[in-house]
Amino acid sequence: MVDVPELVARAREGRPRAVARLISLVEGASPQLREVMAALAPLTGGAYVIGLTGSPGVGKSTTTSALVTAYRAAGKRVGVLAVDPSSPFSGGALLGDRVRMSEHASDPGVYIRSMATRGHLGGLAWAAPQAIRVLDAAGCDVILVETVGVGQSEVEIAAQADTCAVLLAPGMGDGIQAAKAGILEIGDIYAVNKADRDGADAAARELNHMLGLGEARGPGDWRPPILKMVAARGEGVDELVAAVEKHRAWMDEHGALAARRVRRAAAEIETIAVTALRTRLADLHGNDHLAGLAAGVVAGELDPYGAADTLIASLKDA
Amino acid sequence: MVDVPELVARAREGRPRAVARLISLVEGASPQLREVMAALAPLTGGAYVIGLTGSPGVGKSTTTSALVTAYRAAGKRVGVLAVDPSSPFSGGALLGDRVRMSEHASDPGVYIRSMATRGHLGGLAWAAPQAIRVLDAAGCDVILVETVGVGQSEVEIAAQADTCAVLLAPGMGDGIQAAKAGILEIGDIYAVNKADRDGADAAARELNHMLGLGEARGPGDWRPPILKMVAARGEGVDELVAAVEKHRAWMDEHGALAARRVRRAAAEIETIAVTALRTRLADLHGNDHLAGLAAGVVAGELDPYGAADTLIASLKDA
Repeated sequence: MVDVPELVARAREGRPRAVARLISLVEGASPQLREVMAALAPLTGGAYVIGLTGSPGVGKSTTTSALVTAYRAAGKRVGVLAVDPSSPFSGGALLGDRVRMSEHASDPGVYIRSMATRGHLGGLAWAAPQAIRVLDAAGCDVILVETVGVGQSEVEIAAQADTCAVLLAPGMGDGIQAAKAGILEIGDIYAVNKADRDGADAAARELNHMLGLGEARGPGDWRPPILKMVAARGEGVDELVAAVEKHRAWMDEHGALAARRVRRAAAEIETIAVTALRTRLADLHGNDHLAGLAAGVVAGELDPYGAADTLIASLKDA
Repeated sequence: MVDVPELVARAREGRPRAVARLISLVEGASPQLREVMAALAPLTGGAYVIGLTGSPGVGKSTTTSALVTAYRAAGKRVGVLAVDPSSPFSGGALLGDRVRMSEHASDPGVYIRSMATRGHLGGLAWAAPQAIRVLDAAGCDVILVETVGVGQSEVEIAAQADTCAVLLAPGMGDGIQAAKAGILEIGDIYAVNKADRDGADAAARELNHMLGLGEARGPGDWRPPILKMVAARGEGVDELVAAVEKHRAWMDEHGALAARRVRRAAAEIETIAVTALRTRLADLHGNDHLAGLAAGVVAGELDPYGAADTLIASLKDA
């Protein structure tokens, strides 16, 4: 058994191994998960969570890296959670990127954690908030959550950040793809990266049109800016940081930050409750009961809704 | 109110509008959802479901289109469910692709349905099986389910097909990305598309290595083939169809098809049950109860597990 208070204390001191250990404990749903989460609870709330999402190839990792550099220069402790199969943080990118990242990997003020796009228990919706909670409790001032903007769970994780930045790049159909993936609805800030390429202005215009930013909004409404940047050369990164800070200030001023965090916590609680109920369904009846119902559905004798009713009813009897 | 038996009868006759209407009813969780699902149940089980997944840009839609052509030539009725933001079926691709698809769109033996990568109710895991069920009951012989191989829910949908084909394309790091996304674990068939490009042989070798296909397997085990194809020119498509048929025959022979379908139905039942419980949690307590718990979590007074326990306990009392 792990000495949880000791581990939490070491994580608070900024020891990377203690942080990594804690994340592994919560991610793997260790028997001590509840003890860990209870110990972390009073320590959370200090970090500002920034979501960064976009289609593959728009330069999310490069932007994440540039943001790490910027926040480090401002003396902030930074956590990175990469939920992106193409991210160098997850080990899946080209050599150049990986080298670029490695400077951060050796910086004691930066914690990097990657999370594969696949299921453990309740999946990403369950695991990502736990990891964010650990990074928060460990004293990170800023947590960058990089998710690929394809995939339902992945998009939702970014959307639940305090500030969500959506990246695009010039290229035919990119805006349409983004719209289809649902990421045009979630940005507090939009950035057209690789703006030195042809079509950057057109992409920004198309984006402006798709977002309907020309339309009238209420006087107190947040108006998502559309930035242009070349993250690989650091151009426009300061403007992105400034936009994040501006959005943060706006959220504070309008009480929107608290509201958003309550919404995020509600989603987290719900996912935990639903995962627990799912586990209980499986435990109570064993796979035999469910398999029997499933066989009835396959045979066409039962529809899946009737089968689900039976399953829920037996949960209540228990 | 819709006359469900009448609508189902018309869908059985192959009328596309009736099929479309049924899918809208189940997708939108209409009040008549249960009536529809009960009516469909005895009519399902005739379709063979083929999942097709891979990273963006590997040519999934082109391959889907080529498979539609091949199965149509064999006189089969074909359903397509596209869960892919970049698919021309979902409206998000380049003009050339869309033109290529439109021939199928006017073929009465082909039903095409797209599904956006975002949440309604229980999300994709909930909605996709319902749509497959409608296409099945409507008399499709083959259902092609195209999902982007990035995103947890999307990958799972493809993995639950009767036969799952994973597409790759030559290119540095593609195999690693695929591994990170978890799609190297789910293929019954692997195909390196765009095999006229440099690096196709290397990609096939890398894939072979990553899959450990050189290792000894049991004599009765299915050994996933690695094909090469150029779907845009129709090259290798017959071989892909042959591989699907071979896998299908193997599944039949080993009783694996029935087992896989029971597993798929079990996942479907579970998702419906969990979605129902989630709705009940929200209904019973209203958002006020959950919001109160969430506020406690945000304030650090409560951890999310304790909050989830409270939520579940009040469900039991009801």
